[in-house]
Amino acid sequence: MELVIRDVSIITMDEERPFIEKGYIVVKGDKIEEIGEGEPPYNYDRILEGRDKLAMPGFINTHTHAAMTLLRSYADDLPLMEWLQNKIWPLEEKLTPEYIYWGTMLAIAEMIKSGTTAFADMYFCMEEVARAVEKTGIRAVLSRGMVGIGPQADLALKESEEFIKNWHNGAGGRITAMLGPHAPYTCPPDYLKKVLTLAEKTGAGIHIHVAETNTEFRDIKKAYGKTPVEHLESIGLFEHKVLAAHCVHLTENDIDIMARYDVGVAHNPESNMKLASGIAPVPQLLEAGVTVALGTDGAASNNNLDMLQEMRSCALLHKVNSMDPTVIPAYTALKMATVNGARVLGLEDKVGQLKEGMKADFILIDLDKPHMNPRYDLAANVVYAAQAGDVDTVIIDGNIVMENKVIKTFDEEEVIARANFIARQLVRKRQGS
Amino acid sequence: MELVIRDVSIITMDEERPFIEKGYIVVKGDKIEEIGEGEPPYNYDRILEGRDKLAMPGFINTHTHAAMTLLRSYADDLPLMEWLQNKIWPLEEKLTPEYIYWGTMLAIAEMIKSGTTAFADMYFCMEEVARAVEKTGIRAVLSRGMVGIGPQADLALKESEEFIKNWHNGAGGRITAMLGPHAPYTCPPDYLKKVLTLAEKTGAGIHIHVAETNTEFRDIKKAYGKTPVEHLESIGLFEHKVLAAHCVHLTENDIDIMARYDVGVAHNPESNMKLASGIAPVPQLLEAGVTVALGTDGAASNNNLDMLQEMRSCALLHKVNSMDPTVIPAYTALKMATVNGARVLGLEDKVGQLKEGMKADFILIDLDKPHMNPRYDLAANVVYAAQAGDVDTVIIDGNIVMENKVIKTFDEEEVIARANFIARQLVRKRQGS
Repeated sequence: MELVIRDVSIITMDEERPFIEKGYIVVKGDKIEEIGEGEPPYNYDRILEGRDKLAMPGFINTHTHAAMTLLRSYADDLPLMEWLQNKIWPLEEKLTPEYIYWGTMLAIAEMIKSGTTAFADMYFCMEEVARAVEKTGIRAVLSRGMVGIGPQADLALKESEEFIKNWHNGAGGRITAMLGPHAPYTCPPDYLKKVLTLAEKTGAGIHIHVAETNTEFRDIKKAYGKTPVEHLESIGLFEHKVLAAHCVHLTENDIDIMARYDVGVAHNPESNMKLASGIAPVPQLLEAGVTVALGTDGAASNNNLDMLQEMRSCALLHKVNSMDPTVIPAYTALKMATVNGARVLGLEDKVGQLKEGMKADFILIDLDKPHMNPRYDLAANVVYAAQAGDVDTVIIDGNIVMENKVIKTFDEEEVIARANFIARQLVRKRQGS
Repeated sequence: MELVIRDVSIITMDEERPFIEKGYIVVKGDKIEEIGEGEPPYNYDRILEGRDKLAMPGFINTHTHAAMTLLRSYADDLPLMEWLQNKIWPLEEKLTPEYIYWGTMLAIAEMIKSGTTAFADMYFCMEEVARAVEKTGIRAVLSRGMVGIGPQADLALKESEEFIKNWHNGAGGRITAMLGPHAPYTCPPDYLKKVLTLAEKTGAGIHIHVAETNTEFRDIKKAYGKTPVEHLESIGLFEHKVLAAHCVHLTENDIDIMARYDVGVAHNPESNMKLASGIAPVPQLLEAGVTVALGTDGAASNNNLDMLQEMRSCALLHKVNSMDPTVIPAYTALKMATVNGARVLGLEDKVGQLKEGMKADFILIDLDKPHMNPRYDLAANVVYAAQAGDVDTVIIDGNIVMENKVIKTFDEEEVIARANFIARQLVRKRQGS
């Protein structure tokens, strides 16, 4: 099918032509066939009117645990270990594959409605997550989380290998599989080496939490005499494609190492703020040439999966933290949420920009709202004023996944009802245990 | 007219009964007649179904410059003085009374749509602002901003007195007038004393910017040998009802003074972050017993008037700044945006809680959205996950000002069109000057 969006404002994120005030986008199959100023050159099967709308690449959420939406607002405002040990972990123990499917569906509903067209997930029961991705039409980079201590360590390696075999390039090419060793403090060096062997064998990239808390930084330093980043370098992790989530506690040398190995960073400002983990040195990372993208982390520590909010929090937090209002200007925040997201996931040839030949993954944002006017600078309006509910239409892999704010690929109401039913069951099981 | 909202979840913000899982609210005239659990006792003229909705007090935005929505995203990410001198002030010079009317209308449209039922404004041409308040049905505390240096100083005093005479208790009691001396660095002591004389004469409270930037702190210290707060105390300002906006740079002694005089604080976290002004010591102020409320500041430095975002930014910022995730829990953020807002504006007997005999100023939030589920804790869902677009219905002074997301008191589309027309004229005038 050919589809054209006409009479639309466009932020392409393509540096050669970043803005088109009034133009059109032609979609053919799963790709952007043509993009230009003025009126489209001829007629198409399907025309979407773009007046009073802004087209831009969909957001790329580079770090989340989708099924944790089931735990949204179950426990908040607690000290980290109390939150994990007494609240989150006991409830996570009760999760079944079916729960994880519906929790992921709820997450994907929220992500599509807030303009996210691709996400990187780390959790367990990844087959369920993949099924949800297949069903909903979203794009995803999935890793089965692996904890290298405890009885499930070897099973996790085995399941990861199977998952890669079954799902890499699955769902019509929308799924990329990665390996997900959880973190340096949960994966001892010997285990990480097994992961690297598997990475060698499968060619898969590695998604890992790095230096999220000060406790981790101190513990790793104590155990190995190295910072988490130095420690991972010494094991050889960075010889592979690595997506490092958080990276809050870094030394200058760590930043140099990350730049040298082109480690991709998933910065999660709202989770880091909410859990009081600290403030990642993002301006310094960008300055050193590290690709920094954005992620929401799971909904239990955010408590939403809204990339518009993540961009705004990122821009505002680093301005005040560095006492410099020029830090992370609006366009940089947009880049982190799109182009940089694609790069850290290894999808930069496919998505993150509106450009001929790229996959048609983009969104239309409604501008006809009080808070989106006047329109001196659409990039600033998106980063500093837009809200998730302004996202009107979502196109992924050339398919209209949401139109006029209605999801087309599944029944949103059923997903909400199932999630609430599961939440009640989780609380009951927890009380019974 | 009698109106009932039935089958609704309620956060009352009344400490004696903060939550009602399923209940009703009866509105009679401009007041809450009855509030209770279960089904309402009899039938009413008008019934609103509250299923899958949450009723709570409307938000109180305690510091803004409404008409500055006209300058939203005109200039961002610049050093403060460059932003003010080269961008904001030259455009502000071009504002006419008519522009200020429409800019305020745009601001009020945005505020109503994001659940704000009362706001405190400081700007010029206050008669225009009052007209917009009268027209739209919102509640407001208005002060004509006064700069005590330059040719307009005495005129500002005269206009303030006239404004109080004409508009205090205006718009059916929805308008409260205050005096608005801009800041200690723009109002010399002699001028502030004239303001105090006028406060004595009229009984009006005082809305003032205090200790917003480090530059102000240093300059006042240099000029008077005192911190801004000590300086204002020595002049006698705090003998009056004072609403102090920002209060970013405070000493421990300043906090003691503010607690002693019961100075109300309008905390503006997003503006302070965006302009890199600094982080106000909010946990310390609350600990000392100071009433801290929330404000968005003007849209030029935010760039929205969304109190849901302001609550979230407040809660997240102070957690990471104090490295303590228990700081400003969700319910405290809600309190700052409602009860505390009413207190700092002197409206605590009228609004800020859902309680029999209070004015009927409340909102219904749509819970039937992916990001608002599951519903373990509605306060946390509102603070950490809700977005402005979830606000479905807004009732102010007993009138339905918005229903099913449609504003009833004026034509939102006209306001957007006028604002965009004015924005184009402003740019043209600026280019011509």
